[in-house]
Amino acid sequence: MSETNTFTINDLNRVRRLAYRGHYDRATIYPIVDEALICHVGFVQDGQAIVIPTIHARVDDTIYLHGAPASRLLKLAATSEKLCITCTLLDGLVLARSAFHSSMNYRSAVLFGSGRLVTDYDEQWLVMEAITEHVAQGRWADVRRATDKEMQSTKFVAVDIETASAKVRTGPPGDDEEDYALPIWAGVLPLALTPSAPIDDPRLMTGVTAPKNVSEYRR
Amino acid sequence: MSETNTFTINDLNRVRRLAYRGHYDRATIYPIVDEALICHVGFVQDGQAIVIPTIHARVDDTIYLHGAPASRLLKLAATSEKLCITCTLLDGLVLARSAFHSSMNYRSAVLFGSGRLVTDYDEQWLVMEAITEHVAQGRWADVRRATDKEMQSTKFVAVDIETASAKVRTGPPGDDEEDYALPIWAGVLPLALTPSAPIDDPRLMTGVTAPKNVSEYRR
Repeated sequence: MSETNTFTINDLNRVRRLAYRGHYDRATIYPIVDEALICHVGFVQDGQAIVIPTIHARVDDTIYLHGAPASRLLKLAATSEKLCITCTLLDGLVLARSAFHSSMNYRSAVLFGSGRLVTDYDEQWLVMEAITEHVAQGRWADVRRATDKEMQSTKFVAVDIETASAKVRTGPPGDDEEDYALPIWAGVLPLALTPSAPIDDPRLMTGVTAPKNVSEYRR
Repeated sequence: MSETNTFTINDLNRVRRLAYRGHYDRATIYPIVDEALICHVGFVQDGQAIVIPTIHARVDDTIYLHGAPASRLLKLAATSEKLCITCTLLDGLVLARSAFHSSMNYRSAVLFGSGRLVTDYDEQWLVMEAITEHVAQGRWADVRRATDKEMQSTKFVAVDIETASAKVRTGPPGDDEEDYALPIWAGVLPLALTPSAPIDDPRLMTGVTAPKNVSEYRR
């Protein structure tokens, strides 16, 4: 991790609109990245923006992606110097008395950096473990680890974060003063990505039950 | 809406990797767009990809965005011919016996199109209603509608969808044949964006209670 814990504000990462919701410290940004199960990766192909969702993991100041070698996302991400990776968590609907002030509670992190192909075997293993653990903590100890053949048929890409920011909204609606006298319900409807009971694989070996990190899963 | 119900497959929207998961018909793509509370908009600034989450609404083959006139997203979206709008719904963790075959169940829609500023007052009203209803169906009938001043201080952008595709994964893990004999739990952990009880605004007028479209909210 870098020496300072805050990204320098520049034209790229500056939160312009509602600037008081902007954050530039790793202590705010990285927990959002880590809680998000997926990220949206933005890259440019022939002047065209392309945004693809994918699983990620963060290790220090690096975001790791992986997938099939044929993936357009990974092919372009591995060589792009101008990637954007965005993680968004929805925390609730903010239902104001007015349409105009209605909003959402959310936490989003927008990261900028260059992609590079991960060719070092040890770093590839680190990615495999980091992504497995990112999805379900403790899973790496339980799974059948990747074979050499599987590792060779997986492409690993690292995106070293150069700059980033987060934007966070919390709390109740902010209505116009005169609207508080209106007999309209207002408030927040909390939302969370919530697991329900695990569904056993149809071919699960008899007697095998879901481990606690699955049955009591939470982000 | 266009005459055919399927987008032509081209280099932009073609699902390359695991092509059998790709869909090009509006009947698959649009329900994903409509269920997603937010989208991730990708645009290009000085060769740099930028991905920003925002609330949207779909009307026929058009995605509408709105926000403050100062927003970089809206400024660039209104003039970009090469936007990408991606909506992603997470349905579950796919926990295979092997790290390699672990995955997620998801539905994602990737839309491509040009942005244009919405200047027509009637279309602006349509956007205001569509976005309010997109977030919480029935809300438009309850809220204090926007004033002329509020409408003038809101920027509305339309993105007419030129091409699109969806990618969908469902069902249990697909492990290697020999791995089914391993005593490792495998299956799906279903996930859904779930509301909990509405939180009344601290300044809510006495006697006002949450309407059914909030207290029984579901996507």
